[in-house]
Amino acid sequence: MKKATKKNALYAQSGGVTAVINASAAGVIDACLRSGSRIGKIYAGRDGIVGALTEDLIDVTKESRATLRGLRHTPAGAFGSARFKLKGIDQNRAEYERLIEVFRAHDIGYFFYNGGGDSMDTALKLSQIGSQMGYPLVCVGVPKTVDNDLPLTDCCPGFGSVAKYVAVSTREAALDVASMARTSTKVFVLEVMGRHAGWIAAAAGLAGRNANEAPHVILFPEIPFEQQRFLERVKQSVTDYGYCVIVVSEGAHYADGRFLADAGTRDAFGHTQLGGAAPLVAGMVREHLGYKYHWAVADYLQRAARHIASKTDVAQAYAVGKAAVEFALEGRNAVMPAIVRKSSKPYKWTIKAVPLEKVANVEKKMPRNFITADGFGITAACRRYLEPLIAGEDYPPYRNGLPDYVRIKGAAVKRKLKSRYEL
Amino acid sequence: MKKATKKNALYAQSGGVTAVINASAAGVIDACLRSGSRIGKIYAGRDGIVGALTEDLIDVTKESRATLRGLRHTPAGAFGSARFKLKGIDQNRAEYERLIEVFRAHDIGYFFYNGGGDSMDTALKLSQIGSQMGYPLVCVGVPKTVDNDLPLTDCCPGFGSVAKYVAVSTREAALDVASMARTSTKVFVLEVMGRHAGWIAAAAGLAGRNANEAPHVILFPEIPFEQQRFLERVKQSVTDYGYCVIVVSEGAHYADGRFLADAGTRDAFGHTQLGGAAPLVAGMVREHLGYKYHWAVADYLQRAARHIASKTDVAQAYAVGKAAVEFALEGRNAVMPAIVRKSSKPYKWTIKAVPLEKVANVEKKMPRNFITADGFGITAACRRYLEPLIAGEDYPPYRNGLPDYVRIKGAAVKRKLKSRYEL
Repeated sequence: MKKATKKNALYAQSGGVTAVINASAAGVIDACLRSGSRIGKIYAGRDGIVGALTEDLIDVTKESRATLRGLRHTPAGAFGSARFKLKGIDQNRAEYERLIEVFRAHDIGYFFYNGGGDSMDTALKLSQIGSQMGYPLVCVGVPKTVDNDLPLTDCCPGFGSVAKYVAVSTREAALDVASMARTSTKVFVLEVMGRHAGWIAAAAGLAGRNANEAPHVILFPEIPFEQQRFLERVKQSVTDYGYCVIVVSEGAHYADGRFLADAGTRDAFGHTQLGGAAPLVAGMVREHLGYKYHWAVADYLQRAARHIASKTDVAQAYAVGKAAVEFALEGRNAVMPAIVRKSSKPYKWTIKAVPLEKVANVEKKMPRNFITADGFGITAACRRYLEPLIAGEDYPPYRNGLPDYVRIKGAAVKRKLKSRYEL
Repeated sequence: MKKATKKNALYAQSGGVTAVINASAAGVIDACLRSGSRIGKIYAGRDGIVGALTEDLIDVTKESRATLRGLRHTPAGAFGSARFKLKGIDQNRAEYERLIEVFRAHDIGYFFYNGGGDSMDTALKLSQIGSQMGYPLVCVGVPKTVDNDLPLTDCCPGFGSVAKYVAVSTREAALDVASMARTSTKVFVLEVMGRHAGWIAAAAGLAGRNANEAPHVILFPEIPFEQQRFLERVKQSVTDYGYCVIVVSEGAHYADGRFLADAGTRDAFGHTQLGGAAPLVAGMVREHLGYKYHWAVADYLQRAARHIASKTDVAQAYAVGKAAVEFALEGRNAVMPAIVRKSSKPYKWTIKAVPLEKVANVEKKMPRNFITADGFGITAACRRYLEPLIAGEDYPPYRNGLPDYVRIKGAAVKRKLKSRYEL
């Protein structure tokens, strides 16, 4: 009778990748392998949902043990990820039905979708349409986003590592600027990610402890940018401390909603493609204050920086992957493992299931009490929240001076459908 | 009789700081402390040569043992560095005489100047004027530059760590781009330092092994930029591999010498202040090829990244500091400890003294045979040269998730001169 209930599992990565999304993959795969007779084959979508639509599946069990172990310390999306948002069921029923068709052809009973808010929405809709079409499918979301903006979970896997990278880099660059400010660069601007929420920018605030320590100015998306107030603060910092370190979120914007650096292009989700807030801010400083400046844009470096990943983050990324499978095997459909903070000092956390319908398409912004009254820094409450998330180092193995990241073989599963799906 | 020969030592940091310049400071200080009766007080110039000119000296022996030990793992210039170039003796004899006046007042018999080519020139001139003025002074240069462009030394302390950072970051960002290229970013551009020499850009080449692996295009200062050839290569890479990772040196320029991104401002040395080659190159790709792109500018992050320092580099930085003192105590004046490569596999190196007059103001560029015939990559010979320099990790200690870098107390030495020097 057990034979009859055995179903295959499909895992897919979605959206912007992180330093630890593959650790979640490892958590999913390890738990599937340990499921005994409950889960048969373990498949992954090549390039995420795109692989599912095009029936381009990877047979994960054909990977070596060493590769599967290596996923835990390898950044980016080992199976390929996609920026590909499925529209509402009414607008694009054919796509959802195609997915169910592929799932049916490959006897997939468990779908693990590793992504952010958009992906949780897709997983939810798939579980609904599966039920409508009479195809039994358990869909579980696996949270992932460097933006840390998913609701109902204390934090999002991927965030802790980018937070650690940004805090470490800010501390290091600040020492550089401080040591040369007397005769050289006085203002340094670092641009970090975070389209609508300032969590990543806030993490830079961990670099210093006191007002005289960098960063002296953080520009959050939550606080409308006012040039005059900003310039006054920069000038004060240079006067008081000899230099000024500024961290600007890519999502920093004026009161009217205009981003500081709107490149004018949009991605597949219709989101504005940003970049260049740092040179823009540096230009303001040069024009109005005349200080020598430098600027950096961390871009993908920050979210790919597995070499400086947070140990807490790696552990949580793995744990949500593992929990997703456990929830699925308990028959819990349309849920997501969320991280629950039990205490901050000492840091204790656990995992619980939350319904996807409460997660999908809700953005969690920074609470106002995490940002100082003047809008340029983080509060003690914010620090208490952030500190445990960057705690601990989890170094990858090195070979010839470089991290020994793994690459999958990616053996294709034989196609079963005659119909083809074109992107 | 020994008492009579005891002299104080002055150490000063100069120019752009690095992840390991403080390791050289530690080497100098430890060797001074071990010199027995030969060296008395150990002073450091606050903000480098500026501190020497203004008689603003730091008493290094007042620092705790923990701080002095911590220098080895702390990036940037702990004593402060300066971009302050002394002109030729004929043009500015007063400045050199002022330095000798300060040295005489504080009984400084040994001067250790930790910097690049300009600083080696200053150390040389100081040794000459000391001799002309009948003030016995031993000047020893301590090599330091991320640009790796000093002659007569196989490599320059500071370079190996920035090389490791750039190679690691390129590998990580490339995995990110590769995993999403099908539906998202196809071209990623990373801008790295290296004003006139492409050593740092070359280090990015270590990230991949084969033609299909990133970086697919490196833009060296040694190879004049040709837009058409560049765009063709990018297009080919996207066609063949699905994506293209480009590493551009800040010093990349057209055949007529114009930098790709000349910001139009100049620093204290009269050098053009660069920045923005990455967005410029990305803009070309968008305009002519239409690919979705991302770009990053590492700027100070790369040279301050002590968290991912090369173990080889840290060891060499410390060793040249130590050797500088040993040479000085042997009475060798106007020399610089140079790193000599004895073999690449296994990597063996030693240190010898080279005369400052052969080092000063000579820039070592990449040999042409280190760059592939097409000008876009590194050769096997380059790889053999670079690989040992990024070998090994030398992690700093962490506290609360952040590197536990030290800050000096910086106790001032009592002024002895009535005259003041204004910058």
